[in-house]
Amino acid sequence: MTEQAARVIARCRELALCTETPGETTRMFLCDAMRDCHQRVRGWMEAAGMSVSVDHAGNLRGVWEGAAANAPRLLIASHLDTVPNAGAFDGVLGVMMGLAMVEALDGRRLPFAVEVIGFSEEEGARFGVPFLGSRALLGGLDDSLLARMDEQGCSVGEAITAFGLDTARIPEAALQQTPLGYLEIHIEQGPVLEDEKQALGVVQSIAGQTRMEFVFTGEANHAGTTPMYLRKDALLAAAEWMLAVEEYACGVAGLVATTGRVTALPGAVNVVAGEARVTLDLRHAADDVRQTAVDAIVTRAQRVANSRRVRVEPQMKSEQAAVPMDIRLTRILEQAVKSAEVPLRKMVSGAGHDAMLMAARVPSAMLFLRSPGGLSHHPQENVLPEDVEKALVVGVEFLKVLAAG
Amino acid sequence: MTEQAARVIARCRELALCTETPGETTRMFLCDAMRDCHQRVRGWMEAAGMSVSVDHAGNLRGVWEGAAANAPRLLIASHLDTVPNAGAFDGVLGVMMGLAMVEALDGRRLPFAVEVIGFSEEEGARFGVPFLGSRALLGGLDDSLLARMDEQGCSVGEAITAFGLDTARIPEAALQQTPLGYLEIHIEQGPVLEDEKQALGVVQSIAGQTRMEFVFTGEANHAGTTPMYLRKDALLAAAEWMLAVEEYACGVAGLVATTGRVTALPGAVNVVAGEARVTLDLRHAADDVRQTAVDAIVTRAQRVANSRRVRVEPQMKSEQAAVPMDIRLTRILEQAVKSAEVPLRKMVSGAGHDAMLMAARVPSAMLFLRSPGGLSHHPQENVLPEDVEKALVVGVEFLKVLAAG
Repeated sequence: MTEQAARVIARCRELALCTETPGETTRMFLCDAMRDCHQRVRGWMEAAGMSVSVDHAGNLRGVWEGAAANAPRLLIASHLDTVPNAGAFDGVLGVMMGLAMVEALDGRRLPFAVEVIGFSEEEGARFGVPFLGSRALLGGLDDSLLARMDEQGCSVGEAITAFGLDTARIPEAALQQTPLGYLEIHIEQGPVLEDEKQALGVVQSIAGQTRMEFVFTGEANHAGTTPMYLRKDALLAAAEWMLAVEEYACGVAGLVATTGRVTALPGAVNVVAGEARVTLDLRHAADDVRQTAVDAIVTRAQRVANSRRVRVEPQMKSEQAAVPMDIRLTRILEQAVKSAEVPLRKMVSGAGHDAMLMAARVPSAMLFLRSPGGLSHHPQENVLPEDVEKALVVGVEFLKVLAAG
Repeated sequence: MTEQAARVIARCRELALCTETPGETTRMFLCDAMRDCHQRVRGWMEAAGMSVSVDHAGNLRGVWEGAAANAPRLLIASHLDTVPNAGAFDGVLGVMMGLAMVEALDGRRLPFAVEVIGFSEEEGARFGVPFLGSRALLGGLDDSLLARMDEQGCSVGEAITAFGLDTARIPEAALQQTPLGYLEIHIEQGPVLEDEKQALGVVQSIAGQTRMEFVFTGEANHAGTTPMYLRKDALLAAAEWMLAVEEYACGVAGLVATTGRVTALPGAVNVVAGEARVTLDLRHAADDVRQTAVDAIVTRAQRVANSRRVRVEPQMKSEQAAVPMDIRLTRILEQAVKSAEVPLRKMVSGAGHDAMLMAARVPSAMLFLRSPGGLSHHPQENVLPEDVEKALVVGVEFLKVLAAG
């Protein structure tokens, strides 16, 4: 599979040249560069004997028919859009892997059809809302989403029309019958596999997420005339709490807690901060663990605030439950990993993926490939050829086990 | 002195109505409202038998002649300009106290002349550089300062001309011979006297100040996919260091250390901070204590950074040595406080004042009045009538002791 893996990587790199912005890879929802991208992928799919179409949400869909007409259908998908100044593999790799798996069949028909989908939008970069492509398959690309504007004042609907598609026909993109399953192959976008010198990870669940903001209110005072013992420094309260959050998260397996943005007011070098706002991003595979963590972190904020005579107001911004992958399909994927003699690393996805939405309707499984340097959304984003080769062996084995099932 | 104290306060409140912005007190360098302010103060001074002039840097100067021609001169001064949306007492109180001290002489001549000065500019609010008024007395209002622009594109020189003054004659504002001394009476602008239930403080020294910025550099990473143990969170390093700064400052008498502004980059809720910049404002009456503190705080930053596998770069922004008040004049002021049967509270000024500049050329002393709520640069800024009365008794006593000297 060395040669096929090399071809997967070469195709990803070729598609990275389809860009809105010369010199980098930026390919947002249905931009002109997406036409070129579609044309190239369509060519490879057709050469592999697949029937290719673009649905009216802009998803590229190539079907390798099954042995029988009306055979059930396996979806292998990821997205073809990118963030601005992206790498070559986030999303695109999963589509090229699906294509390569079909090519590896070498003309054989399976008891099920295989549909390889390149979603039109997953990143949310252009309209601030992600998963436009997979939403269309689930019937969720509704009028309110179609009305969303990008920074140039172009709506989702207008972008679809400008691409030569018809918003009235978006409902045709929806799944007609429940597919056999959904497989997404994706780079990890994190450092765990690399740190453990593992090639592949089998996703068990996509982590649930809580986003909050904590507002600490103390007293703004003159930095020169206010002795330390008379201060109510909101920023120091925030600092103490951030360290408490870290300490708590380090003590709970699999929990990640991030305080990524902080604002101190008035924010002057010579004024004690009267207010400090800090964001919290909290993720875990188990919703009850995450909920317990939220409670503990709020309690710690109040404890710190009390001890420093400041006030704290925790504000909930969003909550999203964890999404478990399908147990049966994931077992098959794990079996394929073992058959390929790759060490089995079960893991949680801390990032969102199309699989998170698809899992609501279709039994879903996800395979991660090691991300060198943990890098993603970055021009230096990469994959190792030997990892792609292993993933391809696993993918082919997955089809075989599923076909035998 | 109850009646005289009430008059001082009433005059301050009256001058607070001289404002560029109706409904608040904003009176920046030589704005139109300053004409009205000068006219009122001039009227009171002349009624007290003083000869009044405005020098060409815009300082209002009223002289109560001494018993003999060419007697040495005592300066009693503070500033008449304000920050935007100011209170009624910062600066103005010191000028009104000087006037009230002359009035309290009730026509008596002293062995020295008393010049009460209302400086045209101390706050730095209009041109971003403070002390324009007192600089002129020291010969330091030079061409580079005259060329400085305000936000409307008006230079210091143009503002002086627009006020009807002559920049070519600014040198005439400079001190002709070294005065006997300089006394500045000012609100504390801090909470110390109030916290200790003291009315007055005798300033021993104006604190030296170091301003720095500490730049922590870690690694920006995905908040969902990067486990806690693989992070290099720059903001958490900054937080740990801020608490170390606080701990250090609390352990050194009289040291104040403030981390008032923090910026985390990229500053997204779902990204581990790759960079954090924090300002440090460090003040102490003793320069060696401040220098030792800088060293200790830098060492702590490096220690925290090392333990978290991030880098830190401490950047020096400015350093200003402490300015001690004149020992002899301050002893006389302390003696006056004792004679007035007010408990003697020696203190350090953490804020800068005109006295800081004047002390380079003139033996200087400063008296602080309690600031209710520690408030200054705020519409609610206030003084207590009984404190003003005590300060007036002290001021009159100061003149008496100095005259007896």
